[in-house]
Amino acid sequence: VTAVRIAIINPNTTESMTDTVVAFAREVAGDDTVLIGVTPTTGAASIESHADEVRGARSVLEEVQRLEVSTDRPDAYVIACFGDTGVAAAKEVATGPVVGMTEAALLTAAILVHRFTIVTMPPETIEFSDRVVRSLGLGHRVTVRAVDEPVGAIANGSLHLLDDFLAESRLAIAEDGAEAIVVGCAGLADLVRPLREALGIPVIEGVAAAVGIAKSLVAQGHGVS
Amino acid sequence: VTAVRIAIINPNTTESMTDTVVAFAREVAGDDTVLIGVTPTTGAASIESHADEVRGARSVLEEVQRLEVSTDRPDAYVIACFGDTGVAAAKEVATGPVVGMTEAALLTAAILVHRFTIVTMPPETIEFSDRVVRSLGLGHRVTVRAVDEPVGAIANGSLHLLDDFLAESRLAIAEDGAEAIVVGCAGLADLVRPLREALGIPVIEGVAAAVGIAKSLVAQGHGVS
Amino acid sequence: VTAVRIAIINPNTTESMTDTVVAFAREVAGDDTVLIGVTPTTGAASIESHADEVRGARSVLEEVQRLEVSTDRPDAYVIACFGDTGVAAAKEVATGPVVGMTEAALLTAAILVHRFTIVTMPPETIEFSDRVVRSLGLGHRVTVRAVDEPVGAIANGSLHLLDDFLAESRLAIAEDGAEAIVVGCAGLADLVRPLREALGIPVIEGVAAAVGIAKSLVAQGHGVS
Amino acid sequence: VTAVRIAIINPNTTESMTDTVVAFAREVAGDDTVLIGVTPTTGAASIESHADEVRGARSVLEEVQRLEVSTDRPDAYVIACFGDTGVAAAKEVATGPVVGMTEAALLTAAILVHRFTIVTMPPETIEFSDRVVRSLGLGHRVTVRAVDEPVGAIANGSLHLLDDFLAESRLAIAEDGAEAIVVGCAGLADLVRPLREALGIPVIEGVAAAVGIAKSLVAQGHGVS
Amino acid sequence: VTAVRIAIINPNTTESMTDTVVAFAREVAGDDTVLIGVTPTTGAASIESHADEVRGARSVLEEVQRLEVSTDRPDAYVIACFGDTGVAAAKEVATGPVVGMTEAALLTAAILVHRFTIVTMPPETIEFSDRVVRSLGLGHRVTVRAVDEPVGAIANGSLHLLDDFLAESRLAIAEDGAEAIVVGCAGLADLVRPLREALGIPVIEGVAAAVGIAKSLVAQGHGVS
Amino acid sequence: VTAVRIAIINPNTTESMTDTVVAFAREVAGDDTVLIGVTPTTGAASIESHADEVRGARSVLEEVQRLEVSTDRPDAYVIACFGDTGVAAAKEVATGPVVGMTEAALLTAAILVHRFTIVTMPPETIEFSDRVVRSLGLGHRVTVRAVDEPVGAIANGSLHLLDDFLAESRLAIAEDGAEAIVVGCAGLADLVRPLREALGIPVIEGVAAAVGIAKSLVAQGHGVS
Repeated sequence: VTAVRIAIINPNTTESMTDTVVAFAREVAGDDTVLIGVTPTTGAASIESHADEVRGARSVLEEVQRLEVSTDRPDAYVIACFGDTGVAAAKEVATGPVVGMTEAALLTAAILVHRFTIVTMPPETIEFSDRVVRSLGLGHRVTVRAVDEPVGAIANGSLHLLDDFLAESRLAIAEDGAEAIVVGCAGLADLVRPLREALGIPVIEGVAAAVGIAKSLVAQGHGVS
Repeated sequence: VTAVRIAIINPNTTESMTDTVVAFAREVAGDDTVLIGVTPTTGAASIESHADEVRGARSVLEEVQRLEVSTDRPDAYVIACFGDTGVAAAKEVATGPVVGMTEAALLTAAILVHRFTIVTMPPETIEFSDRVVRSLGLGHRVTVRAVDEPVGAIANGSLHLLDDFLAESRLAIAEDGAEAIVVGCAGLADLVRPLREALGIPVIEGVAAAVGIAKSLVAQGHGVS
Repeated sequence: VTAVRIAIINPNTTESMTDTVVAFAREVAGDDTVLIGVTPTTGAASIESHADEVRGARSVLEEVQRLEVSTDRPDAYVIACFGDTGVAAAKEVATGPVVGMTEAALLTAAILVHRFTIVTMPPETIEFSDRVVRSLGLGHRVTVRAVDEPVGAIANGSLHLLDDFLAESRLAIAEDGAEAIVVGCAGLADLVRPLREALGIPVIEGVAAAVGIAKSLVAQGHGVS
Repeated sequence: VTAVRIAIINPNTTESMTDTVVAFAREVAGDDTVLIGVTPTTGAASIESHADEVRGARSVLEEVQRLEVSTDRPDAYVIACFGDTGVAAAKEVATGPVVGMTEAALLTAAILVHRFTIVTMPPETIEFSDRVVRSLGLGHRVTVRAVDEPVGAIANGSLHLLDDFLAESRLAIAEDGAEAIVVGCAGLADLVRPLREALGIPVIEGVAAAVGIAKSLVAQGHGVS
Repeated sequence: VTAVRIAIINPNTTESMTDTVVAFAREVAGDDTVLIGVTPTTGAASIESHADEVRGARSVLEEVQRLEVSTDRPDAYVIACFGDTGVAAAKEVATGPVVGMTEAALLTAAILVHRFTIVTMPPETIEFSDRVVRSLGLGHRVTVRAVDEPVGAIANGSLHLLDDFLAESRLAIAEDGAEAIVVGCAGLADLVRPLREALGIPVIEGVAAAVGIAKSLVAQGHGVS
Repeated sequence: VTAVRIAIINPNTTESMTDTVVAFAREVAGDDTVLIGVTPTTGAASIESHADEVRGARSVLEEVQRLEVSTDRPDAYVIACFGDTGVAAAKEVATGPVVGMTEAALLTAAILVHRFTIVTMPPETIEFSDRVVRSLGLGHRVTVRAVDEPVGAIANGSLHLLDDFLAESRLAIAEDGAEAIVVGCAGLADLVRPLREALGIPVIEGVAAAVGIAKSLVAQGHGVS
């Protein structure tokens, strides 16, 4: 059996965030999958504004185009930014399937439970989540909440924000009827297990979810766009 | 590596439909997955009315309850009926994840393309598709069309309906802007490849899609409800 | 004048709930209407989960089929379970009109006021209300709240829960702008008058509402489906 | 038993339309109901524009206010104009319940079937139907079609338009999946029976539907707003 | 250059409200625009109920019809009542464009920010705002809040309500994520600047917004309906 | 009086399209407005794919940032690409208001009529229109149709496509009930007058609409974001 090769593209230039998210995805991906973390060398250090998204989308597009003509063309791509920056353009230029971490997280949550909540950060990016929620049409089943910290705060891990995410998740359960939590940012992967343990409900990380879906799309032959 | 064991439950009593859909799913599931087709011995011969759905839901519930206390409890379940009859109840009583073929097909299509069409049969079941489309909120991206044949017509394969499905799919492309087709009935799996070849766009079969998602949910640890 | 005969089918096996709801409906039905309470002998004792709904739907279907071939075939049916379990199947097999208590309650409230709130019980069944709200499309005018008690708590009457329902209704008025309250469970009929008196706004009981609509459908000749 | 007295207010000044609709409603209302047709002496001759609606709403408001202080105050009101002109204002000033023929027709259809079509006239009034459909949230289940004749064409009965309404209804069945037809104008009551016979599906007339609902609201004690 | 002449019609008979709103609009309209305040002599003193709306709509219709046949026919009309009472009818009978203050305010806010809040008064009129929000489809981006004062309280200016509007606006920012505030009543124009200064976000007054849009419609040649 | 200075930024590099659209906008902008056409020197020659949009958004962002620090900073910006590529990012970095041609066209049409149709080109860009329609929530009032020509076909004017646009507009009127047409591409400005004359209904060009709204926003003091 040949392993499936999936490139995980981080639209921002912060390599430590790529590392965190790829490490978490590896634990769930299985031995038959090779995950290749990709961090652009130029662009935005984090995606916290629409202007950052413009830069991040360009980085995604350039990285996919570069990989497509390389000798190591991956079988599929996962775009690791909440808001799915650049995903639509990547789908056009890639030979294999492209999955955004946000669409993957939302669809996974929608299969697991009826109502759920995205806990993202910072509050300014709630609009990015709203955009994907609305594009999928899931507005009647999702609420979006935010922890008030800049993305820079998790460049070296997010465990120090566990209490903030726990507090917001508990509000989601009590006030919004959330039956699952989606962590709304790449680089929050290290929060998944402690949150799940403390809350006792599913906690969904979009890159891990996207890797599973990407593998399945390849297996179903939806590889060639 | 231990293989993941997934029970594919057909809510109706027509064993040949179970066989068709399991055979197709096996081609895409990979060697690390064991698929167990389950056909109830009593209930509805096909699911073409709300009354059939009541009987089919009961069959699904009973089969899951039986498997849960068996020595062979599967790691996950796929429910193989367009309309996701009994899926909500199965999710309550199963230890592992349960995925409906309809929700899996729609979410897969939503990742692959912007607009798509379900081609189901017979027209009386359009309402079942509508119900899942509306529960997910995808109404702005999906149309539902139907071939006017009873489910019984495909008890022994559906290839003789290729022309009907091609005609309806071509209308979907021309009039609805469909960029992908979802075949809207378990037992249409043998139509997927000829449709894909003739149409040149993705053709999605929900049981195959559901198996991939179920595997990924198990890998992500979303096994215990 | 021949009286209209309406069967009120309780999908669960708790006869005292049938009695409560039929007694309340009789007060509003008029002398020209015969109400026949029907309680299944096997099935679920209450409908609090999707698995209960599968069993309850089967009970509804079987009771309608039994009555249809009896010498006493009723002119119409009312299904007395919030969530309208089995109503779609019953509509298919009945000769006369079938009205669910939930659809009847929501449509009645929508005629009386602009915004209203369902107060159901327990919280796990909020999803059942949501499903009917969404099927009708009334989501922009309805909120759903719940009292945290099992259905079993009202097997012998619900007056001991008056304070809980009053508290939740007052929150609905203050926070959701509710101009009317729908009591979201068969068996809460004895709460209608004290709630109405204390709140000063319409309080709607679905079975009573459904009986009136069923009579009118018979009169309009919509009897034969 | 005291009969329930219901005023049927025609917002326009064309008495023959009041007569047609009251006559049809009488056939379904039952002996225990007194129907009082009300035609304003000044205002619009038909309601075919927004300006007509402004005039018609004023007529409705004035007639209700007049009846409220008369010695013959009715127990309930039905407003007989498709589009429910003046209904919201009438609800404020009436002591008893007020039901619009459009809201009554749509809710009745929504209980009888899943998908249905309003056939109104002339095309310029499609927007009035759309407004009520959207206010109720039923857009996913309703289509609106129109026969291209002015309202004046039915001042003396609508049977000469049967072929036009049949043709449009058949398109609704074939293209929109309509399972029932709502005739979208007061004064089309004489079309109900021939349409029903020719089409074989429910044909709903809003004033008759509204009378039944109004009676039921009075019986439930929702009389005092 | 000939100045554009715009009639600002107040649907109620309170001349001081016309004066306030015209004065504010003049400051933003530019020298090339002549604003003509119009106050009906009969009708409702304020628009706080559906019955008031019926009267106000008639006043609007009569004033537009009067101006259309006058020697001073304006180039465009702005209707100065939150809820856009009579606007649809005015659009039918006017030669030039007609703009409602509510539609203008909502569209302006939708261009400036993603999420915003209408702060109206009194709470009974929230439904009027909801109606316009829903007609435009902006429900996913707008919340509506109210200050609990009758419209009569601002007949002579609204500055004494600044604290109430500030408090409600701050709740909108904190709880609804509002990035802009729409003041939801003609006659609140004197609150715009102090609110803007205190809140630091855009505060939108609908009549001023409508005047700008009306001028632009005239310039684009959309003058003749 | 100082003139208002508005930069019209074309996200693509085709200068002739900038010229066409600026020339048309000048005719409606008035003498008190200075329009500055801006064409990027690098980027996409036309915006017909998501990948083009990524490049176009970057061009928009860079041009706004360049102008913001120039000695000639404009008072407002109009972004001249159907789909509003880069508009959200431009709003963040501009001091003055930014208006997209698509949002301006849709809001203008929504004020003029109830139902309207966008006629865009080529069909692949229908999704871009859909995105803005959905972001505004106008889906219930808008249809989107397309002429099957590449954007390159109008680099030197679009009059040769008049018959195609007429044909599609007439279908919109007949089948979708369109009361106005929005031309869905910058560079179609020369079609506006002949279409309006031939169709007899409003034909809306987004850049002209956006210029009027931008002027009004500046006048209302919404200049500083």
